[in-house]
Amino acid sequence: MSAIDHTHAPALRSWVPGADGHADFPIQNLPLGVFSPNGEAPRAGVAIGERILDLPALLAANLLSGTAADAVEAAGATLNGLLGLGAGPRRALRARLSELLAEGSPARNQVAPLLHDAAAAQLHLPATIGDYTDFYVGIHHAENIGKQFRPDNPLLPNYKHVPIGYHGRASSIRPSGIPVRRPRGQSKPPDAAEPVFGPSRRLDYELELGVWIGPGNALGEPISIGEAHAHVAGVCLLNDWSARDIQAWEYQPLGPFLSKNFASTISPWIVTAEALAPFRIAQAPRPEGDPRPLPYLTDEADQRLGAFDIRLDVLLMTPGLREAGLAPHRISASNTRHMYWTVAQMVAHHTSGGCDLRPGDLLGTGTISGPDLEACGSLVEATLGGRQPLRLASGEERRFLEDGDEVILRARAVRDGFASIGFGECRAEILGAVA
Amino acid sequence: MSAIDHTHAPALRSWVPGADGHADFPIQNLPLGVFSPNGEAPRAGVAIGERILDLPALLAANLLSGTAADAVEAAGATLNGLLGLGAGPRRALRARLSELLAEGSPARNQVAPLLHDAAAAQLHLPATIGDYTDFYVGIHHAENIGKQFRPDNPLLPNYKHVPIGYHGRASSIRPSGIPVRRPRGQSKPPDAAEPVFGPSRRLDYELELGVWIGPGNALGEPISIGEAHAHVAGVCLLNDWSARDIQAWEYQPLGPFLSKNFASTISPWIVTAEALAPFRIAQAPRPEGDPRPLPYLTDEADQRLGAFDIRLDVLLMTPGLREAGLAPHRISASNTRHMYWTVAQMVAHHTSGGCDLRPGDLLGTGTISGPDLEACGSLVEATLGGRQPLRLASGEERRFLEDGDEVILRARAVRDGFASIGFGECRAEILGAVA
Repeated sequence: MSAIDHTHAPALRSWVPGADGHADFPIQNLPLGVFSPNGEAPRAGVAIGERILDLPALLAANLLSGTAADAVEAAGATLNGLLGLGAGPRRALRARLSELLAEGSPARNQVAPLLHDAAAAQLHLPATIGDYTDFYVGIHHAENIGKQFRPDNPLLPNYKHVPIGYHGRASSIRPSGIPVRRPRGQSKPPDAAEPVFGPSRRLDYELELGVWIGPGNALGEPISIGEAHAHVAGVCLLNDWSARDIQAWEYQPLGPFLSKNFASTISPWIVTAEALAPFRIAQAPRPEGDPRPLPYLTDEADQRLGAFDIRLDVLLMTPGLREAGLAPHRISASNTRHMYWTVAQMVAHHTSGGCDLRPGDLLGTGTISGPDLEACGSLVEATLGGRQPLRLASGEERRFLEDGDEVILRARAVRDGFASIGFGECRAEILGAVA
Repeated sequence: MSAIDHTHAPALRSWVPGADGHADFPIQNLPLGVFSPNGEAPRAGVAIGERILDLPALLAANLLSGTAADAVEAAGATLNGLLGLGAGPRRALRARLSELLAEGSPARNQVAPLLHDAAAAQLHLPATIGDYTDFYVGIHHAENIGKQFRPDNPLLPNYKHVPIGYHGRASSIRPSGIPVRRPRGQSKPPDAAEPVFGPSRRLDYELELGVWIGPGNALGEPISIGEAHAHVAGVCLLNDWSARDIQAWEYQPLGPFLSKNFASTISPWIVTAEALAPFRIAQAPRPEGDPRPLPYLTDEADQRLGAFDIRLDVLLMTPGLREAGLAPHRISASNTRHMYWTVAQMVAHHTSGGCDLRPGDLLGTGTISGPDLEACGSLVEATLGGRQPLRLASGEERRFLEDGDEVILRARAVRDGFASIGFGECRAEILGAVA
């Protein structure tokens, strides 16, 4: 786990206007991404307040040296090379950025011209995602959804032994802001004799954390649970859009496929392991009677500090709310505490059979729901499978997503004595299906 | 579908020694790949007999022009760019290669120095595989394996409506010849109260066809069944190694994961859609009572000529056979006729919800078993779940694969009046698990 160092000092202030007290990007965050300022070529950047610092320009201005310079040199139009270098260069870069952007920095006049207005920049995927894997570590979600798909045995016997995961589709992952087209597909309505093909009528979101892989491993060489944290570069928000009607009909026996692969949306900033260090917590004690994880999933340091305390919010904007000038409707508030397995357990399990992870691979946690209806990470949970619609201030009702709806995921890490940080938004609007 | 043109003329002979009558690579095949001659840098090549023709060198020698030259220019150390250009440039290249390598070619003296000895070359993956999807179109396999995993309902109700598929792992795909390490993993023996972790004891192969995607589609824009063939660049052999004990314990509810992602092996040559044109056949008529596919999966031309007649063989070499100087044991002989869904149906289904396919993506068909025990595409089928071991000429028995075993997949397309072609081997040896 990362140490908590001076870059987290709550007294640390930045000369960048609007950075201090920024909900997402104060100087204590410094997330990494790839951006195009004003239509220019994509490049590595770091978010600070409402600005983005151009990292290659910082390098060209001779303001970086040593491994901090190596980190930026390894990044091109994607951060895969930087992620592959691991924690050392990433930490050196963080420390140097913290100096350069802090109040009183002697380099302020050199750095200031290298800042771009975030509102005028286009954000890209921060890395080329070689493979995307989605886990299922939100136990309340597994129970909630299991009840709907398999009323007789909601939580399968393997759940508390195996960090269940499956491979997802990398090609259809897009950064926040890119609209999502409603998929068409096969489904079999409960009362129909034969399946039908058409636009999904049970379109849903899923609230997840995305995990960016750092160095990774060679094929055939597992990463042990004790080493796993060194392979986690950072995290983002992930909306694993899901078509529940397509899912119910297709998912047996090989798992979800077209019900998930039409789009996934991520927040474009990699909030680094270093930035999250103050918000690590102990794993929640397992309920009495739950099995002990097998040794390959057991690590004392991971038990002590392997979980995260990050608040997660889901908001919904609809055409009716928009027209009425109303604020988005908050569907739920959850927290990463509700993960049954830690990120290190996900990494150790994924590689335990020899599968290789590569820099820039993305792992999703699976939907993170809390124990209550107000903490559900998907609509199919929050509306009890569509039976209990949400009622909005606009007078609208929602059982599932409608065209023109916009889902907004937010994350915020808060701890007494530390500056709180956020992830930036993960949002996208639903477009109507192709004709 | 590709037309059958003069490049298939059975009377066509090549000046390259050993090409005429070659089991895999006569002049009528001309498969595309990426190779390193004598430890040099990877580059595009075409197999002819026991030689590989260096395509960038052919271009540099001014022996290619027009779209044939464009095709080679688009290829670098991987063929993704070439595949993305689609059938036009690929056909132009094939036509030109056929001229250059045919008996009587006036360019023979210029081309001959550009041939490398295949035995001294290293073969690589022909493309960077962005995403890998595995289908389940072998209906006999689905029935056989279904009986073992779910005796009560072997073939699920969706099977004959949905070309079932799931996402696989791209990072762990290797070309023929790279050994495969036996995975460790969690399994739950039938008589055990708790799961255990250790080397898989039910390691298996799966005989599949791999499908290389050509141009592909933009996110949100499905490929219709009528257009699907234009997006299939070619095929290869695929061994989807499977750990049955890990699979049985992990696969519910999200599908196979670690039981499959430790390794997949492919034959390194892309046998093009053009080379396979003579071996296309009509889809087998569906048994009486089977449902008609939905309109998005129905195309008259695909019904008429969308299937392949390709013989598939599985051979097993063991330490005992090797020591005794015996030939590999033939486990089974199958045929691509046994696919319930065509490749075009796979492509149309995959994109029907908007998921994008990219050039160089790989689709597996799933295990292609025939109706008989001698045509099984996996050991778990051929040994009835390990209950009926194979007996080898060496006196050995096999229920599942043991360390030192080598699985060899071969394919051969044969039709009266045409030169038969093969795919080259897909082989790999099993190494012991990590300590």
